Amino acid sequence: MNAISDAIAEGAAAYMKRQYMVVAGIGAIIAVILFFAFGLITAAGFIVGAVFSTIAGIVGMSIAVRSNIRTAQAAKKGLSAAFDLAFKGGAVTGLMVAGLALLAVSGFYWVLERVANGNLQPLIALGFGGSLISVFARLGGGIFTKSADVGTDMVGKIEKGIPEDDPRNPGVIADLVGDNVGDDAGMAADLFETYVITVIAAMILGHLTFPANTAVLFYPMLIGAISIVASIVGTWFVRLIGKGGVMKALYQGLIVAMLISVAGFYVLTTNIFPHGLGPISSLNLFLTSIIGLVVTIGMVIITEYFTSKSFSPVKTIANASTTGHGTNIIAGLAVSMKSTMAPILLIAGAILVSFNLAGLYGVAIAAMSMLSLAGIIVAIDAFGPITDNAGGIAEMAGMDQKVRDITDPLDAVGNTTKAVTKAYAIGSAGLAALVLFASYTQELVKGGHFNGSFSLSDPSVLVGLFIGGALPYFFAALAMEAVGKASVAVVDEVRRQFREIKGLMSGKAKPEYGKAVDIVTKAAIREMILPTAITVLAPIVVGFTLGPKALGGLLMGCIITGLFLGISMTTGGAAWDNTKKYIEEGNFGGKGSFAHQSAVTGDTVGDPYKDTAGPAINPMIKVMNIVALLIASFLI
Amino acid sequence: MNAISDAIAEGAAAYMKRQYMVVAGIGAIIAVILFFAFGLITAAGFIVGAVFSTIAGIVGMSIAVRSNIRTAQAAKKGLSAAFDLAFKGGAVTGLMVAGLALLAVSGFYWVLERVANGNLQPLIALGFGGSLISVFARLGGGIFTKSADVGTDMVGKIEKGIPEDDPRNPGVIADLVGDNVGDDAGMAADLFETYVITVIAAMILGHLTFPANTAVLFYPMLIGAISIVASIVGTWFVRLIGKGGVMKALYQGLIVAMLISVAGFYVLTTNIFPHGLGPISSLNLFLTSIIGLVVTIGMVIITEYFTSKSFSPVKTIANASTTGHGTNIIAGLAVSMKSTMAPILLIAGAILVSFNLAGLYGVAIAAMSMLSLAGIIVAIDAFGPITDNAGGIAEMAGMDQKVRDITDPLDAVGNTTKAVTKAYAIGSAGLAALVLFASYTQELVKGGHFNGSFSLSDPSVLVGLFIGGALPYFFAALAMEAVGKASVAVVDEVRRQFREIKGLMSGKAKPEYGKAVDIVTKAAIREMILPTAITVLAPIVVGFTLGPKALGGLLMGCIITGLFLGISMTTGGAAWDNTKKYIEEGNFGGKGSFAHQSAVTGDTVGDPYKDTAGPAINPMIKVMNIVALLIASFLI
Repeated sequence: MNAISDAIAEGAAAYMKRQYMVVAGIGAIIAVILFFAFGLITAAGFIVGAVFSTIAGIVGMSIAVRSNIRTAQAAKKGLSAAFDLAFKGGAVTGLMVAGLALLAVSGFYWVLERVANGNLQPLIALGFGGSLISVFARLGGGIFTKSADVGTDMVGKIEKGIPEDDPRNPGVIADLVGDNVGDDAGMAADLFETYVITVIAAMILGHLTFPANTAVLFYPMLIGAISIVASIVGTWFVRLIGKGGVMKALYQGLIVAMLISVAGFYVLTTNIFPHGLGPISSLNLFLTSIIGLVVTIGMVIITEYFTSKSFSPVKTIANASTTGHGTNIIAGLAVSMKSTMAPILLIAGAILVSFNLAGLYGVAIAAMSMLSLAGIIVAIDAFGPITDNAGGIAEMAGMDQKVRDITDPLDAVGNTTKAVTKAYAIGSAGLAALVLFASYTQELVKGGHFNGSFSLSDPSVLVGLFIGGALPYFFAALAMEAVGKASVAVVDEVRRQFREIKGLMSGKAKPEYGKAVDIVTKAAIREMILPTAITVLAPIVVGFTLGPKALGGLLMGCIITGLFLGISMTTGGAAWDNTKKYIEEGNFGGKGSFAHQSAVTGDTVGDPYKDTAGPAINPMIKVMNIVALLIASFLI
Repeated sequence: MNAISDAIAEGAAAYMKRQYMVVAGIGAIIAVILFFAFGLITAAGFIVGAVFSTIAGIVGMSIAVRSNIRTAQAAKKGLSAAFDLAFKGGAVTGLMVAGLALLAVSGFYWVLERVANGNLQPLIALGFGGSLISVFARLGGGIFTKSADVGTDMVGKIEKGIPEDDPRNPGVIADLVGDNVGDDAGMAADLFETYVITVIAAMILGHLTFPANTAVLFYPMLIGAISIVASIVGTWFVRLIGKGGVMKALYQGLIVAMLISVAGFYVLTTNIFPHGLGPISSLNLFLTSIIGLVVTIGMVIITEYFTSKSFSPVKTIANASTTGHGTNIIAGLAVSMKSTMAPILLIAGAILVSFNLAGLYGVAIAAMSMLSLAGIIVAIDAFGPITDNAGGIAEMAGMDQKVRDITDPLDAVGNTTKAVTKAYAIGSAGLAALVLFASYTQELVKGGHFNGSFSLSDPSVLVGLFIGGALPYFFAALAMEAVGKASVAVVDEVRRQFREIKGLMSGKAKPEYGKAVDIVTKAAIREMILPTAITVLAPIVVGFTLGPKALGGLLMGCIITGLFLGISMTTGGAAWDNTKKYIEEGNFGGKGSFAHQSAVTGDTVGDPYKDTAGPAINPMIKVMNIVALLIASFLI
């Protein structure tokens, strides 16, 4: 076990080092550009954001590789012990992500108050730093993990008929490393970014709307602080007691955290805005802070419906799998597209209600209260990949089957909670991006020469909308393509080893694990550059050639198609994954049946959908919006 | 041959009769509602549009079933004879579609001038009638043809290993009927609708922008008239002379039609607007009329790049097929998403240039000149399904292999030209829908209480955008789901017949073809209702509950996501199809190889993408816009 775990940890650390070396180089160039364009403090803000995002990613990965092996060991004692350990590992990551984010923003704001006279632009740069690094982490980690996963499974499961995580498979270490650098490090960086951007967007919009009132700056941060405490308390209630199983234990914690947050928000709001905020009553502000929690609950329920094995979407895909690969994919694509309607209506409703309660600042507060629970949401998510890896280690180390019987159901629950986190992240990203968009609008209005209205009848707005809409498609296409190409390379390599290394299939010879790790490492680092470059450059090019109105259209266009692509990909991918698990439980013929083979194909397609392209769209949307906000003053 | 052809013709006629019976019932209810809401002439407009669309569909189908068998016979004489006959069949459909559309609009306008004092609202109802029937035709025909195709292929090609159109396959007649009711009738109704809507939108926008000048009403119709004559001349130049093959022959005709159109547009514009139109010079108007032709050429080139076997996208999917079903799908999805960028940039560029040349009316004229070539474009498209069916008849009748060797390559070219037509239709639909949107805006401005600006910072516009964006996703999901469910039913039925009918596989017993026809007929008619109902009701519900601003947002939202979904689905589906054909030519292992099996899966997924969901989005977008325009006066 130790040898395997060390190999995984080593592979993960080696990849992270290479990834962040490349990113550091690019970051340094951008920091220099920012220094000359905006001055020292803005460049410093960018660096703070980038460094903290890097820390979030590295810590997320480090905790995971340490928890995996311990969870495998704890699984010998039973479900409760394994779950407890895995959840604690996840909770450390979750609370660390939220804590680091709040620390970065509040600490840097403390500095700004002293050295920059409350100028908030360096905060935007901090958000830019965080988002940029997260795009790299999501893309790089996502390409790594999914090309390893797809390539390994296609030869191992489909062609050779050997189980998942079988030590004879030459791709298996790359696959396990991938879980840590993609699902753990990438996710931690992503949620860090979402959190940071949401706080900053709320602060900036508050400042632009109510410039005289400094309480609007502290209110979002304090909402975050309250929910971190609430999340810590919430984690104490995540226990396997009585019936209901793991899912119930997790939701127990989430509900406790929410109730404490509501109480905290009430005390906070009535104290910080005893007479309301301008025309907005303090009751209305408190109510908007609850909307974020309602959206969170709604996203959880919707995502569970579309991805859990208990409801009709997954069962429909499973039924379609009995007739072949093609009908599995058709049914999965249908579910993936269908799953966008309810979340979008939920977000639209949240916008309408919070705007009517408290104007644009209300939308910002709703987004902030939604994100404030990131600590416990990430905790609920991060235990999944830990148990997944624990199962892999158990399998490879030849441990007792009963260990695997404990980690497998935990992993299945983790699959749904991972989908929930992604839906939560992309939903909150939509709100946060809208707040950034509103800040961009306000910034242009402040600079004069702009009436505050991006009219849909204005052809440059229209053209911007179209171009903006095209970017998430192009970005997602590049991500899918990268996984496609790299997994073909992995398949070729794994096939080669099975063909050339004698005694591999009979277990007498060991595969060369390092070769597959090397292929996906190189592919991930090479392929993450272009999509990120397009994301940063598109708003600059459109802003300076077609003007600030076209740029406004571009931002809205990328928010719209980005939301749909993000939700459909993450939800659809999880539905495919759980369809496979549902069939493996013995439905429609069970493991090894024709339906199972089709379901494995669906899972393969869902992998880059849900773990590469889909979640990377989330930071991508925000990078575009924050770059626009950063250059707004030059465009007028 | 006659027996087979009669069976196909009979099945197609029976389906069309049932489809249009259901549609007639729904249409009658709507006509009554329109009568009470708007009066007799508007209801009459709706009926004219609906009846002419029905005629377009029925004529398209009738010509196809008559040309198929004749083409199979002509193929005995050689490539040139078969191509000549199939193209002539397509040309009749194409010129009939454009002619009927222009006749409906100009004839009804002639009546309106006499009985309605030039009130244009009944024209909107005419467009509504045409669009509504086209949604039904596209959806019903698309669900029929693709569930038959997918279900038949999955058992025949993948499980039983028998060739396409093998008479032993119990689904084969349903499949061949489907080509006629989907690819021929559905396509004819779709292009009829696109043409009618574009003329009407240009006329209405012209009237709203320049109410005093009646020439703006005739200009779009005359552009159409010139291009019909040009298209007739163009068809004479479609001949197989020298090298270059079929594709060159087709493009020859298209180019001649374009050149004649350009000359005609020049004479027309300088005569009808000798001193320009308001501030717009007649040269500028002439130039905008050329933009539509440029966009057409651009769409042809882009679509050919992404779907033809000669370029890298199809080759990349083919390479990915060697490693399995999953990588084929991943690569195909990547190509499908990637293919949206260039068309969107082209359309965005066309909007910018035409707006700068001649304002919103310029965008309308660009759309009209693009659509004016529908006659020859449809001719180029419609020969494809004719040769496809001819091949099927030859196969089933046990004709000489050399007949099949002639129809197969013609069918492959037809695949690319079909993709081109769909991209052309969806691109022009985007422009036409924008013109409708502009008319809706003008209509609200005219009614007062509206400043003409749908601001992106207005939350109701934003909410409308989100809901509008969700509708094409939901619509496409329902269409995919319908094909998925019905093809599972076909698979079960075909499997049952192979299992229960003794001697079927050895050719001693005949399958019960009617059973499969019956399954897909019922499924198509049942499943086309809900998506169409949503399309008609969504703008009404949003308009009357959230108001005219939210409705404006909804229209733009559905244009944006609809364009992306439409382009990505039609292009991606064609790329998958041609990947299969590319491998069948002997690349990557050829027929029967592992790569070929994966490519068949990709083709299966691409089928409902390119022939059901994708093309149905085109009339769907326009129904929403035209319903909004119809109810605009009630919303103010």
